[in-house]
Amino acid sequence: MKILLIGAHGTIGQAVQANLAPRHTLITAGRSSGEHQVDLTQPASVAALLERVGKVDAIISAAGNLHFGPLVEMTAEQFNIGLQDKLLGQVRLALLGQHYLNDGGSITLTSGILSTEPIRNGANASAVNAGLEAFVAAAAIELPRGLRINAISPTVLTESLPVYGPYFAGFESVTGERAALAYQRSVEGAQTGRVYRVQ
Amino acid sequence: MKILLIGAHGTIGQAVQANLAPRHTLITAGRSSGEHQVDLTQPASVAALLERVGKVDAIISAAGNLHFGPLVEMTAEQFNIGLQDKLLGQVRLALLGQHYLNDGGSITLTSGILSTEPIRNGANASAVNAGLEAFVAAAAIELPRGLRINAISPTVLTESLPVYGPYFAGFESVTGERAALAYQRSVEGAQTGRVYRVQ
Repeated sequence: MKILLIGAHGTIGQAVQANLAPRHTLITAGRSSGEHQVDLTQPASVAALLERVGKVDAIISAAGNLHFGPLVEMTAEQFNIGLQDKLLGQVRLALLGQHYLNDGGSITLTSGILSTEPIRNGANASAVNAGLEAFVAAAAIELPRGLRINAISPTVLTESLPVYGPYFAGFESVTGERAALAYQRSVEGAQTGRVYRVQ
Repeated sequence: MKILLIGAHGTIGQAVQANLAPRHTLITAGRSSGEHQVDLTQPASVAALLERVGKVDAIISAAGNLHFGPLVEMTAEQFNIGLQDKLLGQVRLALLGQHYLNDGGSITLTSGILSTEPIRNGANASAVNAGLEAFVAAAAIELPRGLRINAISPTVLTESLPVYGPYFAGFESVTGERAALAYQRSVEGAQTGRVYRVQ
């Protein structure tokens, strides 16, 4: 398959590359690295990437920023960071990308465990991840031509524990390699509207 | 209790007023009607309302617009309507409003059945409603001073069937009066982080 992978140089993106590269043709993109540069918050940037890359069999996103911080100090403007970046950025990729998928192609987005397991400082992440998961469930029932869409919801990654570990007290981590299996299931499997929880 | 009710003149808002008015002091607000005018998408408008009203024991929102339309034609800009209005508008009210609540006070927001039951044209509504429900679950674990926060998730209202009925094929409707009971439970009860599903 010809697969477009956004966020290719993040921890998840690298693991997904390692999993998929032996069997597929990967086109990588990222905000500042990868074969192509793309900013999912910018409509023109996403449209230009899709035009350059052309038709593909799968689109994967492992990209998106969130706001982390205490609820009692949080502003709506901070909350909007996650809405515009991780949520609307990935939704934009899906809405535009559906028109660049070959029949039977798939879209795989990335949410996260906070959709269902809140932590302190994580109100923005919980809302964004749950919004993504519900979007995937709703989009799946409308996509034509056998197109599929799923979300991967990983817990904190083992590789990210030095940075994010203190937020996730008592959570079991998973390696990027294990999380990548879920992306493989989404791309190479046949299901749609699913949230694959790697937790 | 002194209760601030936003969206007071909508179908739900009127039913909530009828339920709560005999036992509480209600202050009503809405985009174009009610004692006070407020636009939840405008930070200054929300701040000004809260300053005018002062400390309250409960804040209820039954307000917010969404985008309805086919996924294959949907743009990110249309999707952002629901993010900025029903989702971020209510989150803004909660984030600012927490500082105007007396100890033990509560916030009650409105999501909707599409968070868990997708329909055609409803991808934006599903994401927004699920985002609100996850926000409430996450915010509840951080609120200080015994403050509580819940969401009400009604199915389509019987009173709204003439307009929204065609979208909700085969769904059972509920009356505004029944939905209002859930708002009463949230305000007069003791639970937090709950989604009351009136479905």
